[in-house]
Amino acid sequence: MFKKILIVGCGLIGSSILRASIKKKISKKIYVLEKSKIHIKQIKKLRLNCEILKDPKKRITNVDMIIICAHLSEYLKIFKKIEKYIDKNTIVTDVGSAKEKVSGEIKTKIKRNISWISSHPIAGSEVSGPEFGNEKLFSGKWCVLIKDKNVNKKHLQILTKFWTKIGSNIVYMSLKEHDHIFSITSHIPHLVAYNMVKTAMNFEKKKKSNIVKFSAGGLRDFTRTAASNEIMWKDIFLNNHKNITKGIDLFINNMRQIKKLISTKNEKKLIKIMQESKKIRKKIVSAKQDVNLPDFGRR
Amino acid sequence: MFKKILIVGCGLIGSSILRASIKKKISKKIYVLEKSKIHIKQIKKLRLNCEILKDPKKRITNVDMIIICAHLSEYLKIFKKIEKYIDKNTIVTDVGSAKEKVSGEIKTKIKRNISWISSHPIAGSEVSGPEFGNEKLFSGKWCVLIKDKNVNKKHLQILTKFWTKIGSNIVYMSLKEHDHIFSITSHIPHLVAYNMVKTAMNFEKKKKSNIVKFSAGGLRDFTRTAASNEIMWKDIFLNNHKNITKGIDLFINNMRQIKKLISTKNEKKLIKIMQESKKIRKKIVSAKQDVNLPDFGRR
Repeated sequence: MFKKILIVGCGLIGSSILRASIKKKISKKIYVLEKSKIHIKQIKKLRLNCEILKDPKKRITNVDMIIICAHLSEYLKIFKKIEKYIDKNTIVTDVGSAKEKVSGEIKTKIKRNISWISSHPIAGSEVSGPEFGNEKLFSGKWCVLIKDKNVNKKHLQILTKFWTKIGSNIVYMSLKEHDHIFSITSHIPHLVAYNMVKTAMNFEKKKKSNIVKFSAGGLRDFTRTAASNEIMWKDIFLNNHKNITKGIDLFINNMRQIKKLISTKNEKKLIKIMQESKKIRKKIVSAKQDVNLPDFGRR
Repeated sequence: MFKKILIVGCGLIGSSILRASIKKKISKKIYVLEKSKIHIKQIKKLRLNCEILKDPKKRITNVDMIIICAHLSEYLKIFKKIEKYIDKNTIVTDVGSAKEKVSGEIKTKIKRNISWISSHPIAGSEVSGPEFGNEKLFSGKWCVLIKDKNVNKKHLQILTKFWTKIGSNIVYMSLKEHDHIFSITSHIPHLVAYNMVKTAMNFEKKKKSNIVKFSAGGLRDFTRTAASNEIMWKDIFLNNHKNITKGIDLFINNMRQIKKLISTKNEKKLIKIMQESKKIRKKIVSAKQDVNLPDFGRR
């Protein structure tokens, strides 16, 4: 499909793209740019077929696609490093979880006309690093592609083909639409999970109770989400802060309402809220967005 | 171990106790009192070795232990039904998730001197009904036993032996301590999950976005917890309302703080909160309170 591609950042997502690309014969040559010495060691140990770029002066021409799999706060620094590899035929994409702010910055600060089409595969977990990568990570998962007014249609087509080949189902969105939807389906849930764990820790400190020992009653699920990479999530919270702070207000208002229903013993309304909530779970399982097993099949 | 035991309510927990009791030869005879015709049908279909009590006038004497596995709001009604089976040697227990209020009611309203020792096995999932029961449900899980001042020590010893035999690890608590700890490790997490799903539904309605389709970014985990039985959770919220409303206030305060950290771009403090949170996850996995697999081992 390609002759040369470059993966920038080879952690969980980058190394999964690398593995899937090798498996699906996406490119004759795959270059990897990675700053972490630990990650480089792991990639070598895993014997993944790629060339790790060490010499910053090395020139590579005719790179078909560059995929940035790094923290949002590093994009501008990365662009400075990779500018020399970009020509008019190079598709530049990323896998970031927030879009509008960083895409705006790239358009403003990168003077050159580059073909920037942002991607967001809805895949990953609480662990980081190349050893957790998986060639099937994107299989059957949604991948959002950002379709701007000025998008290079040929490049969009190629990018669509790439993600489809490594297993993703494609959906097109605008920057705004993306950041809006994922604020509620991903960013607020993560923030709430972090806040739940923080609240439990405050409680533990104050009351000298052991929250770890009795976490299986519900808290433990939140701790998984709240074990996600802190730099990644700090970046997402700051990049999508407008949608997120609005979501926080909505969440707090609803929580106050539930508190009132409890204080006034409004059984009917409490039951109704919970019944509605159960329906969403059924829809998610039907839409194959989660496993159809009690307790996630966990034992 | 026993000659006769009676399980009242044979859903997920009741039927798991039934299965484990059969497996571990806990009692020569096991009676089941169950009001749901659907459940009775399922129990018969599963061919679980027990006698389902149908005739309300039937007298059974010398019952060693009665375990109530029903909603908290039904306890008083159930006590009226089972009083005739209780004598001075009968241990009466339950598996409820909130303790202080309902135990107080029982002591006040049930005039007779009965040996009431409350239990709480920290086990279960979002599904209900006997078909999901499992003889290993309690294996390696904590079971809290309420140790009152006036507890019958011999009975407490027997109850400890029973739960240990079906796989539980025992921990003793006072009513107050129980309701306090589980408000933060179980009740608030469930309430927060319901509130997250409610907030997402409000968002979906307002913005006409599809939250189900893109729920894999984090929201789906909350929908599992928020698919739990609505009567059970309404009862828990109302029974433990004092601790829960205090917990809600603490949660909202923390959420406001995080909102402020985002608005003021306080990267350092945001990162610190998330790093602390990650440590709790590690402790939970080390304490074997959750599986040691990314994403709960879900595929």
